[in-house]
Amino acid sequence: MTSFYEQAGAARLAALSLATLTRAEKDAALLAMAGLLECSEALVLAANAEDVSRGRAGGLDDALIDRLALTPARVQAMAQGLRDLARLDDPVGEVVRGWTLANGVRIQQVRVPIGVIGIIYEARPNVTADAAGICLKAGNAALLRGSSTALESNKAIVEILQAALLSAGVPEAGVQLVEGGHEVTDEMMRARGLVDLLIPRGGASLIQAVVTGSQVPVIETGTGNCHLFIDQSADVAMALTIAVNAKAQRPSVCNALETVLVERTIAAGVVPRLVDAMTQAGVRVHGDAAAMALDSRIDEAADWDDEHLSLDLRVAVVDGLDAAMAFIRAHGSGHSETIVTNDLARANRFTAGVDAACVLVNASSRFVDGGQFGFGAEIGISTQKMHARGPMALPEMTTTKYVVSGDGQVRE
Amino acid sequence: MTSFYEQAGAARLAALSLATLTRAEKDAALLAMAGLLECSEALVLAANAEDVSRGRAGGLDDALIDRLALTPARVQAMAQGLRDLARLDDPVGEVVRGWTLANGVRIQQVRVPIGVIGIIYEARPNVTADAAGICLKAGNAALLRGSSTALESNKAIVEILQAALLSAGVPEAGVQLVEGGHEVTDEMMRARGLVDLLIPRGGASLIQAVVTGSQVPVIETGTGNCHLFIDQSADVAMALTIAVNAKAQRPSVCNALETVLVERTIAAGVVPRLVDAMTQAGVRVHGDAAAMALDSRIDEAADWDDEHLSLDLRVAVVDGLDAAMAFIRAHGSGHSETIVTNDLARANRFTAGVDAACVLVNASSRFVDGGQFGFGAEIGISTQKMHARGPMALPEMTTTKYVVSGDGQVRE
Repeated sequence: MTSFYEQAGAARLAALSLATLTRAEKDAALLAMAGLLECSEALVLAANAEDVSRGRAGGLDDALIDRLALTPARVQAMAQGLRDLARLDDPVGEVVRGWTLANGVRIQQVRVPIGVIGIIYEARPNVTADAAGICLKAGNAALLRGSSTALESNKAIVEILQAALLSAGVPEAGVQLVEGGHEVTDEMMRARGLVDLLIPRGGASLIQAVVTGSQVPVIETGTGNCHLFIDQSADVAMALTIAVNAKAQRPSVCNALETVLVERTIAAGVVPRLVDAMTQAGVRVHGDAAAMALDSRIDEAADWDDEHLSLDLRVAVVDGLDAAMAFIRAHGSGHSETIVTNDLARANRFTAGVDAACVLVNASSRFVDGGQFGFGAEIGISTQKMHARGPMALPEMTTTKYVVSGDGQVRE
Repeated sequence: MTSFYEQAGAARLAALSLATLTRAEKDAALLAMAGLLECSEALVLAANAEDVSRGRAGGLDDALIDRLALTPARVQAMAQGLRDLARLDDPVGEVVRGWTLANGVRIQQVRVPIGVIGIIYEARPNVTADAAGICLKAGNAALLRGSSTALESNKAIVEILQAALLSAGVPEAGVQLVEGGHEVTDEMMRARGLVDLLIPRGGASLIQAVVTGSQVPVIETGTGNCHLFIDQSADVAMALTIAVNAKAQRPSVCNALETVLVERTIAAGVVPRLVDAMTQAGVRVHGDAAAMALDSRIDEAADWDDEHLSLDLRVAVVDGLDAAMAFIRAHGSGHSETIVTNDLARANRFTAGVDAACVLVNASSRFVDGGQFGFGAEIGISTQKMHARGPMALPEMTTTKYVVSGDGQVRE
């Protein structure tokens, strides 16, 4: 097996070529990847069946098996994702801004690829094709560190993608699978100068381990302990509709709602209606003492900091806008925070004062998503403040350089 | 003495207030800081005299004493710097982009402060006022970790700045000096969640220690091993003028030139003229064997990776554009790289292919500077790819948030 350092060296060389590919060349490679994935469907499914049976034998639970398992439709979706990427604008070469100095020196800030991006991810093998495609379209080489549970699937997918790259005249080392034990993840995290950026995609413990342990810059994604505050001026029916959608439309994702905060002056009327609506949607409601006193169907919330990622919701009664904002400051993860209100001043105070990647007024947090935002692709939702914050798409997978042009000017 | 964690907690609270100050409030605070600094000049100079005499007794060399020593003119310059900041546009609240989804949900990406920024810097006490002012104007709280050699100066300056903040109704914990031994720097680097960003300003070893040791996101600044390639099509007189300016106009800074690469086909004519011009400017020339063979005044270069930061220059003979780009890849620090050429295709290949914060064509790398770029302020020059690259000014001291507004929309 090739060592990680050999792989990273090959990725750096490949990145040099990828950085100056034209859009047409990158799109041709993406279409070749999509085509070869489709006609190699049987190969991918056979490799995936090995992973699934090994997973079952090893005692993986049904939810993990479901995330691991590929079907013809899922392979088709991977191919379609690559074709969709080919239709998106190339972020590389965009002139972000430009101006001319008094002495005639011209300055342009131009979008360029980042270089080598490492993705560390868990069971879902479709991330392999997604991440490879997004990195390629933005001119970056990808080092894909998938989970050992999906090893055979990932190997098959990467082999197919590499063959497609070769057929399109693009260096195959632009997309590589990084294999090996946990020590390889450690090598990736220490690879300053070889790897430009690490993106962990997966559960909170994976993300925390990478974020605190890496010497390579990291983009933190994914943890969403999201709140919705029902202000005393809110249209309560609207608030309940938004809360049910944000909680139950897809509870396993990071932009799903975890906690509803109800202003005390309206709590007696609102909390029982909230429990009615949630119960009807199959959601179990937990709460603080004040909420429990208003509705006996609410049991005590054990923790206010975790994501449920399930059909569970917490409800707390708060004294007003400032108390709601303090609650969010204490427990939020900086992902998506919502107010439902008809009071303009309060809406403005909430959006200005809450420190999160996304703040929402009278809309469901389920809209916080690269696809919903119209980005056409998404590599994750950043909850950090540096480089990118919120849904990340192709431009967030680039950096910029300044191109300074003169006619011999020197500094006085 | 207050512990670092108490200081950081106070900074977080202050940052909450700073984030929603209006431009007028921030500018009033900056002008108050400038005014109080000026009328407290005697206080600052007395404190500085203590540092200088302690420094001399401790054996600091003349260059360090010069960086440490304040004069009435330098105190005046600090005050003027704060006044200049008050005239710059407020980056906070800028709507970077905005759009409306098909369902009527409105999305705006808005610039907001980062929060708490730690600056770790070396001897020059003027950084204290500069960094505090830039952080404040961008709505951030500043934790200033100055050098122990400048402790009395920094204490005096921060006391004055805090008194000015109080007089302007701004929380004084928005600007704090962090005192203590090396363990405090370690605490800053582990303070994830308390500190949002660390910026080291100083020598290469300080920067490397912070960049590799910090769990808090860091912006890497400053190291510039800058090259200039004289292409065979270059106007040689222009090349020499640019090279002398880039090397000698101010050799101690990061955008100064360190190495000239000369294309082999023109080297016999160019190298002696280069040595003439450099010698006349007081620059010592070191080189590779090929350069030494062309001019006996060149001695052997010991190292190709260091910044001289002095009137020393290296020269190497290379086989052409690709060799020059490979040389820069091997030895450059990703700061500023220059080509002098009259060949358009080669200029384009150089600017596209060289991976650096700034690439220059026919202009001096001394222009790579926030002031020269017209930014009006600079906190350093980033040589990293994440968040900010190149000269960093007020917008780079912010992040963004998405504000999503609807009328009750939910996701289908």
